[in-house]
Amino acid sequence: MTDLPSTLTVDSGRLWDSLMELATIGSYPDEATGLMGINRQSLTDADAAGRRLVIGWMSDAGLEVTIDEMGNIFGRHEGTEPNLAPVLAGSHIDTVATAGAFDGCLGVLGGLEVVRCLNDAGITTRRPIVIAAWTEEEGVRFGTDMLGSAVAAGRLTLDYAYDLVDEQGLRFGDELARIGFRGDQPVRMDPPHAYVECHIEQGPVLAQEGYDIGVVTGVQAISWQKVTLHGRAAHAGTTPTELRVDAGLAAAQIVVKVREMVDSGAYGRLRATVGHITTSPGLPSVVPNRAELTVDLRNPDDAHMAAAEADLATFLATLPDAQPGLRVETKRMAKTNRVPFDEGIQDAIAAVAADLGHDTMRLMSGAGHDAQEMAAITPTAMIFVRGEYDGISHNPREYSTPEACAAGINVLATTILRLATQ
Amino acid sequence: MTDLPSTLTVDSGRLWDSLMELATIGSYPDEATGLMGINRQSLTDADAAGRRLVIGWMSDAGLEVTIDEMGNIFGRHEGTEPNLAPVLAGSHIDTVATAGAFDGCLGVLGGLEVVRCLNDAGITTRRPIVIAAWTEEEGVRFGTDMLGSAVAAGRLTLDYAYDLVDEQGLRFGDELARIGFRGDQPVRMDPPHAYVECHIEQGPVLAQEGYDIGVVTGVQAISWQKVTLHGRAAHAGTTPTELRVDAGLAAAQIVVKVREMVDSGAYGRLRATVGHITTSPGLPSVVPNRAELTVDLRNPDDAHMAAAEADLATFLATLPDAQPGLRVETKRMAKTNRVPFDEGIQDAIAAVAADLGHDTMRLMSGAGHDAQEMAAITPTAMIFVRGEYDGISHNPREYSTPEACAAGINVLATTILRLATQ
Repeated sequence: MTDLPSTLTVDSGRLWDSLMELATIGSYPDEATGLMGINRQSLTDADAAGRRLVIGWMSDAGLEVTIDEMGNIFGRHEGTEPNLAPVLAGSHIDTVATAGAFDGCLGVLGGLEVVRCLNDAGITTRRPIVIAAWTEEEGVRFGTDMLGSAVAAGRLTLDYAYDLVDEQGLRFGDELARIGFRGDQPVRMDPPHAYVECHIEQGPVLAQEGYDIGVVTGVQAISWQKVTLHGRAAHAGTTPTELRVDAGLAAAQIVVKVREMVDSGAYGRLRATVGHITTSPGLPSVVPNRAELTVDLRNPDDAHMAAAEADLATFLATLPDAQPGLRVETKRMAKTNRVPFDEGIQDAIAAVAADLGHDTMRLMSGAGHDAQEMAAITPTAMIFVRGEYDGISHNPREYSTPEACAAGINVLATTILRLATQ
Repeated sequence: MTDLPSTLTVDSGRLWDSLMELATIGSYPDEATGLMGINRQSLTDADAAGRRLVIGWMSDAGLEVTIDEMGNIFGRHEGTEPNLAPVLAGSHIDTVATAGAFDGCLGVLGGLEVVRCLNDAGITTRRPIVIAAWTEEEGVRFGTDMLGSAVAAGRLTLDYAYDLVDEQGLRFGDELARIGFRGDQPVRMDPPHAYVECHIEQGPVLAQEGYDIGVVTGVQAISWQKVTLHGRAAHAGTTPTELRVDAGLAAAQIVVKVREMVDSGAYGRLRATVGHITTSPGLPSVVPNRAELTVDLRNPDDAHMAAAEADLATFLATLPDAQPGLRVETKRMAKTNRVPFDEGIQDAIAAVAADLGHDTMRLMSGAGHDAQEMAAITPTAMIFVRGEYDGISHNPREYSTPEACAAGINVLATTILRLATQ
């Protein structure tokens, strides 16, 4: 074994340049912000182009690249003891429709930067190091988030994933083949030695509390459901109010209700979002016969989450009382309980950060991450990087400074180095 | 002059067959009702096919067919004194997206049946009789209802109409030319002698009160506006509630508010409908940065309407107080005051109905009709025909019996006959 340094420092400029170059793929002029946004949803042509760029960089860095049956990309930096379980680090490069440059990409390109840095220093670790780019983390196209890592960890089946369809009715499995990323490696993975993911916080806490780096204690519970209301189309000018079965009104009442639930404080730190609302036939003079919406609930506490879900279900069941004839249909899109991360990995990250001169705070993640899937099969934790502008994310204004990104990836690099030496 | 009968009786079966044949054009299987619905929106290929069918029937009945610059179709039954102003009768054959067979079509095909009946009886009237099929009465495709008749009557300009665009960005003028119905007759019409329109009630009043036929006293005030909310896209899991600018929430609050306004009783017989709601980017995990909705207000009283519009505007202006950073944009789509119909024509209709053995009631129209445009240039009134199932309309369940349809068109026929003799 080579003589290992106690800490690693990555090339901040090279990391930043890679982030900015990947950000050009799928970019669009965002009307709302006046900035360039990124729309690189999973298994689109833009996603494929992003994947090819990242794979090219992995190959240039000497990584052995494999693609599994879910299109998850792995770049392996061989260890001196190839039969040992590798240290796995990664995140995703797929985005929402109105994204910035950092969500997910920092973890993938940061992992790549770690390997480049090891190469520069001529370091070979005892254990292999594998950098992962997971498929469809966002879940915005096929409706289930953390899809690639969930199948790899065995929580979901490959058949389930392949049969998901997008809004246009296109199958996940078909789209994966179409873009050339239906790989041949078995998707169910052998447990790695550990999993570490560096990600932007996507919230305001680190900035408000004055930290660059957060050690993530786990991921809060997440519930997604689609609610479809079936009413009755009727003429806007002639149909008496009391004879209407207005699906759009019921949808609006749900939106207002979930905000009231949040504001009530009765469900702890509940967050609730209705991101998607639509009505049919969608004409000014026709009472909607159909409305559809999504409800995204998050809670750091499983009991509070269960109470919120139960009370929402009760509310939905009362809607036909006010509008007889209304039919309410719900479909579960995603549901995960609170996932606590491994305390040993958390402590290892905190120790590295301290050695690099960073104070850290521990915090729970508001967003779902691939790390929560890996936590089911291996000791896992995450590093959070501070964001600007209240940590806004899923928005072109999403921004973390080059210094903050480098700080996070420096912590990732030394954490990987130490874990790969175990 | 020929010796004229005092009343006319049309061929009920021929009328019904024509209604049912036209209903096959643009038909689709309606999921919500399990019935065949009709989607024959203005200037679509289906509309063009419907127009060709009606023109063929007009020609078969010996009418001289002309098309004006708005695509309005006129079939002229010459009078013994061709220079006298004609009696005009008509309605429209364009439909909403989830229509039945009667809305509009009864007035056009009923007018055609009147002419067929005159032909059968060998009757030539003193004044010419013109049967009109107006373009884009529904306003669902290009956003302004009564469009063809409004331009013919001079309330809107031809340029205004030609430059309207549909949701796909297609121009009215281009679409009119594309389907081959941009005619050469000047659209601004010389005032006819009178205008009479027979239409289904599209409401429950006639059935509830036990009448087959209604004499329409006018059309209530109608206001359509589009409201666009500009918020800020943000991550559903990480963005604290107090930092959100949620355009979808604001949209929902408007929907709930307008129903509260109706239920309050403070605005007389206000009806309010939000038919169209949509959010962007429309993803479960992204707080909407944009939401759009339409608000359709109707009121038989202009003062109550003005109060409702003012109070809604005040409410919209308060939305940014609750969510600083929210921007509210409104766009007027349509606005008409209450239109009273001519009392002389109303009395003439009532007298005909009485001669035919029908009790009648007088009622105001909840829906807008081409008659309200014609009322600006000529003495005008309408005949309402009873509907079944609470008079449901803009829905495949829309239904009036063959007997009710024939009763209305018998009244129309004799009314036209008497007016054309004046």
